[in-house]
Amino acid sequence: MKILTNISSPRDLKSLSIKELTTLAMEIRTLIIDVMAKNGGHLASSLGSVELILALHYVFDSPIDKLIFDTSHQTYAHKIITGRKDLFNTIRQFKGLSGFACPTESPHDHFYAGHAGTGLSLALGVAKSRDLRGSAEHVVPVLSDAPLACGLTLEALNHISPDLKKFTLVLNDNAMAISHGVGTIHNDILGGTHAKEFFNQFGLHYLGPVDGHNIEALIQVLELAKESDKPTLVHTITIKGHGMPKAVEDPIAYHGVKPLHITPSSKPTFPKIFGKHLLKMADSDSSLVVISPAMLGGSCLDPFMNKYPARCIDVGIAEGHAVTFAGGLAYQGHQKVVCCIYATFFQRALDNLFQDVVLQDIPVVFALDRGGLSPSDGTTHHGVFDISFLVAMPKMVIAQPRDGDMLKDLLESAFEWNRPVAIRYPNMQTEDTNRSIIHRPLGKGEILTKGKDIVLIALGHMASVAIEVREILLQHQIEATIVDPIFVKPLDTALLFHLMLDHHYFVTIEEHSITTGLGMVVNSFVMQSGFSDIQVQNFGLPDQFIEQGTYEELMCEAHLTPRKIAHQILERFSLNQPISAYEKHRNLSK
Amino acid sequence: MKILTNISSPRDLKSLSIKELTTLAMEIRTLIIDVMAKNGGHLASSLGSVELILALHYVFDSPIDKLIFDTSHQTYAHKIITGRKDLFNTIRQFKGLSGFACPTESPHDHFYAGHAGTGLSLALGVAKSRDLRGSAEHVVPVLSDAPLACGLTLEALNHISPDLKKFTLVLNDNAMAISHGVGTIHNDILGGTHAKEFFNQFGLHYLGPVDGHNIEALIQVLELAKESDKPTLVHTITIKGHGMPKAVEDPIAYHGVKPLHITPSSKPTFPKIFGKHLLKMADSDSSLVVISPAMLGGSCLDPFMNKYPARCIDVGIAEGHAVTFAGGLAYQGHQKVVCCIYATFFQRALDNLFQDVVLQDIPVVFALDRGGLSPSDGTTHHGVFDISFLVAMPKMVIAQPRDGDMLKDLLESAFEWNRPVAIRYPNMQTEDTNRSIIHRPLGKGEILTKGKDIVLIALGHMASVAIEVREILLQHQIEATIVDPIFVKPLDTALLFHLMLDHHYFVTIEEHSITTGLGMVVNSFVMQSGFSDIQVQNFGLPDQFIEQGTYEELMCEAHLTPRKIAHQILERFSLNQPISAYEKHRNLSK
Repeated sequence: MKILTNISSPRDLKSLSIKELTTLAMEIRTLIIDVMAKNGGHLASSLGSVELILALHYVFDSPIDKLIFDTSHQTYAHKIITGRKDLFNTIRQFKGLSGFACPTESPHDHFYAGHAGTGLSLALGVAKSRDLRGSAEHVVPVLSDAPLACGLTLEALNHISPDLKKFTLVLNDNAMAISHGVGTIHNDILGGTHAKEFFNQFGLHYLGPVDGHNIEALIQVLELAKESDKPTLVHTITIKGHGMPKAVEDPIAYHGVKPLHITPSSKPTFPKIFGKHLLKMADSDSSLVVISPAMLGGSCLDPFMNKYPARCIDVGIAEGHAVTFAGGLAYQGHQKVVCCIYATFFQRALDNLFQDVVLQDIPVVFALDRGGLSPSDGTTHHGVFDISFLVAMPKMVIAQPRDGDMLKDLLESAFEWNRPVAIRYPNMQTEDTNRSIIHRPLGKGEILTKGKDIVLIALGHMASVAIEVREILLQHQIEATIVDPIFVKPLDTALLFHLMLDHHYFVTIEEHSITTGLGMVVNSFVMQSGFSDIQVQNFGLPDQFIEQGTYEELMCEAHLTPRKIAHQILERFSLNQPISAYEKHRNLSK
Repeated sequence: MKILTNISSPRDLKSLSIKELTTLAMEIRTLIIDVMAKNGGHLASSLGSVELILALHYVFDSPIDKLIFDTSHQTYAHKIITGRKDLFNTIRQFKGLSGFACPTESPHDHFYAGHAGTGLSLALGVAKSRDLRGSAEHVVPVLSDAPLACGLTLEALNHISPDLKKFTLVLNDNAMAISHGVGTIHNDILGGTHAKEFFNQFGLHYLGPVDGHNIEALIQVLELAKESDKPTLVHTITIKGHGMPKAVEDPIAYHGVKPLHITPSSKPTFPKIFGKHLLKMADSDSSLVVISPAMLGGSCLDPFMNKYPARCIDVGIAEGHAVTFAGGLAYQGHQKVVCCIYATFFQRALDNLFQDVVLQDIPVVFALDRGGLSPSDGTTHHGVFDISFLVAMPKMVIAQPRDGDMLKDLLESAFEWNRPVAIRYPNMQTEDTNRSIIHRPLGKGEILTKGKDIVLIALGHMASVAIEVREILLQHQIEATIVDPIFVKPLDTALLFHLMLDHHYFVTIEEHSITTGLGMVVNSFVMQSGFSDIQVQNFGLPDQFIEQGTYEELMCEAHLTPRKIAHQILERFSLNQPISAYEKHRNLSK
């Protein structure tokens, strides 16, 4: 690491020779591979962009010139040379560096960017701001090819003015999304020889293609772009995983890697159970179709794609289209359509859900993977806001299974309800006993244990937390009833109403923003129930953005461990003895 | 109307000669103009597409072949010839025909479509469904040129397989969005001579351009498309307002027309006050910039665009880009950025709001026009779900002014709060006394009148409803305190807490879905306050989709008139005498 040792800011690159830069790239790669082995992270794309990042910093003057990374998981080399190399071993860890660009870490990071396709749009805004005040810095959005399938990128592409100056769009073309790229732009335009014509028609001066691992060639072409008086596209061809033969061979497996020291558990995760069971359903029902926006691997749908490619549709990073297309596919009722989207990315398709599915009353089933915290990915990736908009949709069904068996129940039952359904589940290990399927009636919750003092309503896998809370409360002579509501919408109001006859103290527990989840729904139901003596205490994720960390660290920080929840219940519960009117009202209601 | 009289289904067109079809087009135009004079509606685009719709129905066999209209306000002629001509005079009226495609009206309407850009994506889904089951009908999405700026259309364009058969994309190119079209696709690609190359690269066989008012030519080219064995684009050139010289001359004014019998009121509307005051702010602050996604006219920003074109940015129908671009423009703090979007269209940019503005803590001010009901436009256009997602965003400010003066206060104050802000307001007449601006502190509500019995918390213009409710309650010896919270987030919890010391009965009133608006926020606050004896009754729009009608009809249907609200309060209030524990608790709290 003899060159890297002396690099504490991008300025230090400027005096290096090409040979030294090439050596530096090797040193950076070694550091990335070492840290990824320990921390896990986005390995393949980070390895693929080392030379490009060095060349960008060599040619442009960050942070005056603005390097704006789209889907910024490829910025590890950028982090390392912008003063963060000594912290790099904390990446994706609690209180450590974020795995994505992060403005609070460095003036060289301008925007959080974990959801793809925002870079060009942001960069046009930055350039507009510059031009309005007559400033002269360069604006340099850096995109990989996958976000070209994303509507937001295309909206921005359409909005580039041919008069725009000092604007260099760098296309880091590694011919991959997370899975293989899809769509005409990817396959025929970039993959063929039409890239120049494609970008020319949008008023961009086209330079390239250039070998994205040849620093000298990169510097030459970026210098040309810097001098261009038209908005310019630099097309670089990189190899995902470059410098690590195993990653080059299998860039999908090496897109995101787990720390080496973690030995795989034998317990299955919710997504694995989803993928496996959906394939089983497809075996016996030829009308079943699944749609994924570039998330086949993460959603455990690769075996489905291999077996039934005609019934497994990867639309690329195009969540809006995924949902509207699902509406079109399902509206006549000939197919059973499952659309599997990470909860955080579902935020990109809420209007599509509204107009093209729910308003039409089309029974698409949405599998909202990664519902809840996405520990190491952090702020941009937590799926903790999905219920807020879903619950506003008339007739929408929102369900969450507490274990793998119930996930299968819900998948099997969802099409029986004949409505738009969202089944949310976390990327977490769970139980799968392979018991026989229970067909779940719409809107029916379950009582898991009975107690006379308080009611714990716990959503999904939080049932296991509620069970531990119950144990702790028992030590304080408080007996809790535990309810798995299964459904956030429609809420099992009959069950709750029944419990309200002989309980006056309710607790909600969920892994979702506390502002707009199960707790809010329960609060409003209780308020409208006519009972005047019911109290509800809500536990959920706080009304603030949550950074990265382990699941345990983040849940502890959010005061959602069994011990912390029990403690807070005890604190409040002891203050509120049952009030006399409660007894009165209860007697009246009976 | 001698030909139209005999047209009760598209089948009846098939035997007509070209001359008769041309006459029929004139008859339909006359009917549309007559009804629009009475009902108001989307006049110019409907007039522009009469011949195209006749030709489509002549060549294809609806509803077996699927005509899928994007942004379906141009479908009046389609409605008239598909069995709805006798109901056409009820269009956009309560319990009448919808102004958009409406599947519950006719088997010839496949999807609700009020938000632009969904047609191609839906059509690909329909075609996929067809191909999976080996059926043979034609799928024919009909788009105007404006939705080509929309990311969803471009995502779908990228997803068209070159092997797709019996798929004819009809481009109704009238060279307009609602305002003038913007962007490279519109200006340089369609406007130049590159349309063929543009669509060819996406694997589409290109036919045209063809005169969209020449029925014979249209039929010829559509027949060719029908026989094509590749996915085909038919490029038709139409004139918005065709057949009505005034509308052709000024298609922006005639895009949406008001009924002739309504004499303009001298009272200003919230949007007019917004447009006028923002311009005034721009006069004295050269850093103020406004962004609109193709809604300059409706948002009353035309004078701003005329005076400060460099600081008024119309991005076309690209709401996602509008919001992300706003984040890029504002992030360094050099410009004050206002982004004006209709509340219903804001649903298309929620992830952009999340990642590119709120997470970055960038103080963009969103003017959410048409917050509340959009009476005549109906189901797809009501802005009644916006709070649901906004309130889930950490640090977000959500405010709503009760009158024009307060709208100006909020606009002037919003940048002082230094946070992302949403100011929602309806398209409704209001008071503007031109009193001097009051700088509003963040999160401070106001007590409008004091009363000892109950508290009415009314959001925005619903304050005037609360005042009438108060009058009615007074007749029953109930004295209400009226609170204008001004802010939904952050809620003025200090004010509410203070009122909870000597009131135990609260009512919330808002023009937003009752599931996720102000009422929900108040319910959760009260639940967490520690008071055990506060009751809240929520009034808002029901948890169901709402069709079109006059404002008065829809509010009456939703039981949100002063009389109905008062009646419901009296019904519940009389059942709940102040309970003894309440007195006890109040004394403890003092």
